[in-house]
Amino acid sequence: MEILRFAHIILRDFVVHKVVVRKIATGAWTLSVNPGRSACLNGSLQLDRNISRSTFSVEPSVKESTALIYRCHGEPSQVVTLETLKLPPLRSTSVLVKMLAAPINPSDINMIQGMWQTAVVLSADDLVTVPSDIPVLSAATLGVNPCTALRMLSDFEDLKPGDTVIQNAANSAVGQAVIQIAAAKGVQTVNVVRDRPNLQKLTDGLKAMGATCVITEETLRRPEMKEIFKSYPRPKLALNGVGGKSATELLRHLQSGGTMVTYGGMAKQPVTVPVSALIFKNVKIRGFWVTQWKRDHKHDDEALHSMLEELCTLIRTGKLSSPACTQVGMLDFHKALHSAMKPYTSMKQVLVM
Amino acid sequence: MEILRFAHIILRDFVVHKVVVRKIATGAWTLSVNPGRSACLNGSLQLDRNISRSTFSVEPSVKESTALIYRCHGEPSQVVTLETLKLPPLRSTSVLVKMLAAPINPSDINMIQGMWQTAVVLSADDLVTVPSDIPVLSAATLGVNPCTALRMLSDFEDLKPGDTVIQNAANSAVGQAVIQIAAAKGVQTVNVVRDRPNLQKLTDGLKAMGATCVITEETLRRPEMKEIFKSYPRPKLALNGVGGKSATELLRHLQSGGTMVTYGGMAKQPVTVPVSALIFKNVKIRGFWVTQWKRDHKHDDEALHSMLEELCTLIRTGKLSSPACTQVGMLDFHKALHSAMKPYTSMKQVLVM
Repeated sequence: MEILRFAHIILRDFVVHKVVVRKIATGAWTLSVNPGRSACLNGSLQLDRNISRSTFSVEPSVKESTALIYRCHGEPSQVVTLETLKLPPLRSTSVLVKMLAAPINPSDINMIQGMWQTAVVLSADDLVTVPSDIPVLSAATLGVNPCTALRMLSDFEDLKPGDTVIQNAANSAVGQAVIQIAAAKGVQTVNVVRDRPNLQKLTDGLKAMGATCVITEETLRRPEMKEIFKSYPRPKLALNGVGGKSATELLRHLQSGGTMVTYGGMAKQPVTVPVSALIFKNVKIRGFWVTQWKRDHKHDDEALHSMLEELCTLIRTGKLSSPACTQVGMLDFHKALHSAMKPYTSMKQVLVM
Repeated sequence: MEILRFAHIILRDFVVHKVVVRKIATGAWTLSVNPGRSACLNGSLQLDRNISRSTFSVEPSVKESTALIYRCHGEPSQVVTLETLKLPPLRSTSVLVKMLAAPINPSDINMIQGMWQTAVVLSADDLVTVPSDIPVLSAATLGVNPCTALRMLSDFEDLKPGDTVIQNAANSAVGQAVIQIAAAKGVQTVNVVRDRPNLQKLTDGLKAMGATCVITEETLRRPEMKEIFKSYPRPKLALNGVGGKSATELLRHLQSGGTMVTYGGMAKQPVTVPVSALIFKNVKIRGFWVTQWKRDHKHDDEALHSMLEELCTLIRTGKLSSPACTQVGMLDFHKALHSAMKPYTSMKQVLVM
């Protein structure tokens, strides 16, 4: 077996899908234990040059970890504390991982259920790897939003070059990934954003990513929308991260038989669907949650691997960039949480360790 | 070619799918013109014994038809008039058909867009036949509601014996067909009806058809629903003919990944779907319109034929009965329209000619 080197690893499961880790030691675990797993780790799991193979079976020196922990619900910047945790003992299938970076996602703010941690012990089955030529920040933000965008563009409608997708929350991390992945496939995007002071700058930025057109929520409700659909076909697919009226408006523009996929509900309003749209226009209303997708494909290494490979190829060829990120040291987590909660935030906060 | 005899024919297209017709003459059309069509008419198109094959190419004696016509929107019993129409000339692919019976469906009342007529001239491509051993009233009510019920039970979820379906409007013609077809497949039904004076009688009637349980809209909202789903699995499929709150309540009881199909909107309220049900429960919201299904399968004689054959088998074996009907003479159409509009109507009005 060849000597293993430095690695980026992202993790499959709920709390951990958003971290990039560096493997620094393991228990008695080796690559050959499980053929399925070794396929999953194929070619990209690499240990630090300085760690010889003999390290595989010795206990690591890291016994505790710094962690950001929520113990109750509340204002994130008040309830999150920085603590030192004792790590559990390593079992034969455990992997001790060191975190390199962890982005703060809106779901963290909304759900206040996770914790961050500089080192964790995980089951080897929960690990997947990302090629090491992908920048750390791209890898850190790859597991949730670009995966969500790619799956929504792939799994609901058969999109061909020239087809149109309409989406709200177009400036979110998912929205930006949708624009770029769609553009790479030759699919046109009609992008709805909230009106704001720096609208022109935002529009220019999204168009530079490949957006076909950018409109505000107000324009979406106006008759001039008809003009837009003289230039390109009505959307087969609508992607909804908002809910409420915005979702109902997206629906109105779908072509017959099209699908609206809801992946978020920033407006905190349900999706309201006219009965006539269901019966006479045959629109399909679906939802998508990347965590569930990962659970459903936990034993389908091929699906997970080919998705990551497709995204990494887009990253390498410059067609998919990570959203604008601010790197914040772990000790400055208060500042990072505060920044992540600002309205119209398009800058993602990434904790680096 | 064998001698063709008496026939029931139901028609494929929008206005005509709800009539049963008797073929009394044709233009130069014969069974052998189009192989696809002859397959569609296979074995079940039969002319009256008294009409010899030579009748096929002579002009028929019927030149005009009595018709019920709407010329403007309004209260049906006021805007519908009985008139005599001149029939168009027969072309080589035309068929002159004599109507035997036409049920009045809620859609007629709601949409006021059709007309009824004692004889019509249609394209042979628009005709499909029903085996002649099926009673006229069953045949007359076969083309819309039982087809809707069968397709909704077949095309959205893979239902196995022991699975559960929940539906509102359970006493509608579609609802009754759902109960019977589901029971024949060993699928359990939770049936929601509006509270009413004769609830026990209605409950007994639906249970006699095979309903697993019958509950009111009020019960659907109460915590005791949990008890119901201790006895059988949560529904994979919800069938919604109502919309509004009733639909949202159906959704709450669906199992993860289940589908709600909307085929009607009696409450005249949209379907409201919590974002969390879409994202975290992966419920699928769909619609169904049998007319569109028939259009989509216009050239798929096999699909249409096997659907009718499945329904006719259920009718022959006593597993699917037509809804309670009142036969009304064409001249008494005012009375029929009036009766069809009464609240809590479970008696279907059928015009006979």
